[in-house]
Amino acid sequence: MKNNIRIVLVNPSHPGNIGAAARAMKNMGLSRLYLVDPLKFPHPQAVYRASRADDIVRNARVVGSLDDALVGCTQVFGTSARMREMAAEVVDVREMAQMIAQQPGETAIVFGREQHGLYNEELRRCQYQVKIPTISDYSSLNLGAAVQVIAYELFVAAQGDVSQIDQPKINLATADEMQGLFEHLEKIATKIGFLNPEKPRTLMPRFRQIFNRAKLDKEDVNLIRGMLAKIDK
Amino acid sequence: MKNNIRIVLVNPSHPGNIGAAARAMKNMGLSRLYLVDPLKFPHPQAVYRASRADDIVRNARVVGSLDDALVGCTQVFGTSARMREMAAEVVDVREMAQMIAQQPGETAIVFGREQHGLYNEELRRCQYQVKIPTISDYSSLNLGAAVQVIAYELFVAAQGDVSQIDQPKINLATADEMQGLFEHLEKIATKIGFLNPEKPRTLMPRFRQIFNRAKLDKEDVNLIRGMLAKIDK
Repeated sequence: MKNNIRIVLVNPSHPGNIGAAARAMKNMGLSRLYLVDPLKFPHPQAVYRASRADDIVRNARVVGSLDDALVGCTQVFGTSARMREMAAEVVDVREMAQMIAQQPGETAIVFGREQHGLYNEELRRCQYQVKIPTISDYSSLNLGAAVQVIAYELFVAAQGDVSQIDQPKINLATADEMQGLFEHLEKIATKIGFLNPEKPRTLMPRFRQIFNRAKLDKEDVNLIRGMLAKIDK
Repeated sequence: MKNNIRIVLVNPSHPGNIGAAARAMKNMGLSRLYLVDPLKFPHPQAVYRASRADDIVRNARVVGSLDDALVGCTQVFGTSARMREMAAEVVDVREMAQMIAQQPGETAIVFGREQHGLYNEELRRCQYQVKIPTISDYSSLNLGAAVQVIAYELFVAAQGDVSQIDQPKINLATADEMQGLFEHLEKIATKIGFLNPEKPRTLMPRFRQIFNRAKLDKEDVNLIRGMLAKIDK
């Protein structure tokens, strides 16, 4: 994750939310927290809720105005659920994350007060208004939760393709090993009277479907054949 | 948003997190909260943190075991940051959201304890392990924050135009039907001496992996149990 992103909380009233924001940031590789005139800070509740992100809380920069928090930034995004008159261009979180991933400059993402969000005056300091998609009649996220969603999208965008989580390596069974399994299964099913060779119906095709869908590895085949061998005894 | 999704919290210890989860759900159009043996519930802190989602807290279903919470579900996702041995197929949040958007069946997303997550035994009840991408050395999200990220992705996926690739089977076996199959299989494996209850090793977890991957429908389960019953005779 690039280190060009500031998370700016304007007048947060609950110190627990400051801690929650810090934790959300740390999970996603962000570290630079700015607090504009927080109501209660420093505060033990902020450290407690931060959990292992207490370093971010302790290193937070406390400033007296939003302008102070934005010094040096080339991109400023203001979060707001409400559409405003005279508002900046509106982007959703995912678009924002893409823009930031492609833009090397110093960037701020600004979050408003728990009760009242950002004032129009403050939102006008932002080049973009960023909106977290929600249902229309309950659009106000908890402050820490909003930071979490945004930090998550920033992290995913910075990683590039998300669908690259390591899948456990599978040593897939070969077609002949699968065939060996099906023949073994058929033999046992016949022997115990579950399969009638005179009227086999769709029994074996259905077992094939099941085990083919399961994408068996070599060990799986050995396991099942081990059980079949035991049944045989 | 479809109403086929349960959010299941296993043994949550902080009632505030229950409220935070409820609020995160409501923002994203989810409403069905299940609590497995919560430490403190009902509790005023849960209602307080829920804010306008207090209805979800009050309507939460409290159950005694994870199995009770999963009855009737055809898709079960367990959240975990850790990779486990013998784990289910791993998907990231966005993949999960796509899968759920395409699958009409009853679905559960299971969240573990604040301190310890889900136990392996519980994760084995899940067909998929879902992972929220994070930095590698601080992967544990706050419980409410984790619910928020997942609810957000579900909402975004439900809004999107989802292509109809891979039309899912509609008659999938439910979690309780799968559990019935595994118990039957375990009984027979023990009876024929393939499974030693004194030294069960990873036999049953591996059978679970295999049959969860196979995405069995009700007929598949009946077929396999039919063969098990025949072996028993």
